[in-house]
Amino acid sequence: MSRLHNFSAGPAVLPESVVEQTRDALWELDGCGQGLMETSHRGKAFDAVIVRARERLARLLGVEGTHEVLFLHGGARTQFFMIPLAFLGGGRATYLDTGTWAAQAADEARRYGTVDVAWSSQLTTWDAVPEPGAWGPLPEGTRYLHYTSNNTVAGSEFSYVPDSGEAWLVCDASSNILSRPVDGSRFGLIYAGAQKNLGPSGVTIVAIHKELLAQANTDVPKMLQYPLHAKKGSMYNTPATLPIFVVERVCAWIEDQGGLSVVDARNQRQADAVYGALEGSGFYRCLVKPGSRSRMNVTFTTGSDELDALFVAEATEAGLLGLKGHRSVGGLRASLYNAQTDAAVEALVAFLGDFEARRG
Amino acid sequence: MSRLHNFSAGPAVLPESVVEQTRDALWELDGCGQGLMETSHRGKAFDAVIVRARERLARLLGVEGTHEVLFLHGGARTQFFMIPLAFLGGGRATYLDTGTWAAQAADEARRYGTVDVAWSSQLTTWDAVPEPGAWGPLPEGTRYLHYTSNNTVAGSEFSYVPDSGEAWLVCDASSNILSRPVDGSRFGLIYAGAQKNLGPSGVTIVAIHKELLAQANTDVPKMLQYPLHAKKGSMYNTPATLPIFVVERVCAWIEDQGGLSVVDARNQRQADAVYGALEGSGFYRCLVKPGSRSRMNVTFTTGSDELDALFVAEATEAGLLGLKGHRSVGGLRASLYNAQTDAAVEALVAFLGDFEARRG
Repeated sequence: MSRLHNFSAGPAVLPESVVEQTRDALWELDGCGQGLMETSHRGKAFDAVIVRARERLARLLGVEGTHEVLFLHGGARTQFFMIPLAFLGGGRATYLDTGTWAAQAADEARRYGTVDVAWSSQLTTWDAVPEPGAWGPLPEGTRYLHYTSNNTVAGSEFSYVPDSGEAWLVCDASSNILSRPVDGSRFGLIYAGAQKNLGPSGVTIVAIHKELLAQANTDVPKMLQYPLHAKKGSMYNTPATLPIFVVERVCAWIEDQGGLSVVDARNQRQADAVYGALEGSGFYRCLVKPGSRSRMNVTFTTGSDELDALFVAEATEAGLLGLKGHRSVGGLRASLYNAQTDAAVEALVAFLGDFEARRG
Repeated sequence: MSRLHNFSAGPAVLPESVVEQTRDALWELDGCGQGLMETSHRGKAFDAVIVRARERLARLLGVEGTHEVLFLHGGARTQFFMIPLAFLGGGRATYLDTGTWAAQAADEARRYGTVDVAWSSQLTTWDAVPEPGAWGPLPEGTRYLHYTSNNTVAGSEFSYVPDSGEAWLVCDASSNILSRPVDGSRFGLIYAGAQKNLGPSGVTIVAIHKELLAQANTDVPKMLQYPLHAKKGSMYNTPATLPIFVVERVCAWIEDQGGLSVVDARNQRQADAVYGALEGSGFYRCLVKPGSRSRMNVTFTTGSDELDALFVAEATEAGLLGLKGHRSVGGLRASLYNAQTDAAVEALVAFLGDFEARRG
């Protein structure tokens, strides 16, 4: 077999040019005489990689000079508790409950202070995100407002950056980071597992404002101290070197094609094509309300579990992989991350029509 | 350039056959139509990988049926606090202080209970490990005895498994795991960052006895709950898929050549060759006492910082990389992990003689 159309929700498709560069580096990294997996994180070859990765991410996120960019372990789930452990300290924070990951982040925060869930779509299976400001003013003394900018499982997405007023804004951007131009100055802390838009699983990106960093509780285990990771340039422990290499190459791929506005336009075009095909049919139904729909994860259903299962089976047969919805919600899901190809999207749109014609 | 002789202390040299298999899988994993970095951790292709990895590790460690084998994030440093958080609970544990990593593990444990440092070589720059039982009986009620089976920085190694009596035995085996046959039944918990003997950085192996697992404190953040990781088959969060693939391939490489006794014999032969060359010269001096010397990390010096630096520079020129000692101790270090080649060892022995002849 060969590489087929990959709609996996994560780990997810990467640019083929990046896969090729990684393959080459696996044998030998940048002429250093050692393979990418086999060279010291403290050697010159890898140091050049992590420095470039940090610079590119800071530039793309618009946080140069204001934030520290860190490469940590443990996925977004580790950030779920590491953030309130560092910054809540018995105080209060507001969480917007727009999906299973948002809810789980709030659950972990309850260990460390008061969590105000100011807005929730849980009762309607997380089928929407709030209108700007729909959650009202934050309670006095709120440390931060936490939101999940894209909800991978439900398939919803914020099309705007929430206003957090006096409080810091904290964002889990795991599944739509670098999918559109962003004003990083709005954020106290942005975090993202790499395995959707940035690279393979195994590394977590954190961009943290230097003023917020200075407020971190450091009476915690060393691996949970943001300032220590910042001071050591993400080398306090051995970083996940290969994933960081891939993240750097993905950022280069974005910059080389013209930056986030180009990526943004392609993402919009691809999402429009798929949502257009779904809306234009009388057969499929989107799971998320208009205005809240994700450009990264398109969730839909035929309305029948049997037909959904048949859709997945026949799509797989036709070389379209990873279209099954998350086990917690069922249905169908097409993930259209940055590296998704137009060819895959065209194949999906065609398959949607074919399947409807045969089974609708 | 091409791949040169690699004596890096970690990330470290891997079997070339494993590098080649990883390179192939990067493009497409086992005929699944998706690349290794791009396929869902919940898909069939990766599931087969992690199941095999778990089985092979359990077999090689001799813990089949008795222990859970986990693939976690955060490196050995995360285990430094995760273990006492789960198992100390205000009680007491004994730590053997044989190197910088052992000392840092003890430091983290002090947050969660009483740490008895029963034996230390810190005052003599960690130049030895204790004789069996040299630390005397453990205090009444000791929860576990923690030791570091190989000290990567100092270059010392336990040639035996300590007797922990009634207490659980906990071992940081990061830098000599699977370097010799092991009786896993002796251990309550073995942990190891992958990036020395097992694979690339980014995944941590934990083998934990099921009885100990049942005693874990679960009133902690979810990512720090061993039982949850065990219950979810290391899939509670997205695991580091590529590193786990490599670990599985390295275990297959060990088993295919006849298992740990074959690896053990080669490690002994290589270490004998290097120590023999050092001892046979009047020029070099080993940093660790006889009887405590590591087969994985041979630390030595010419006795002069200038000559040591010249040694590193000329060795690098001659295609022998990674021979500089850890920045905290200086001197020279040759790492001879499982995947080290006989050709590299022969080249090192020859270079030791050449350098002495020219500079001695």
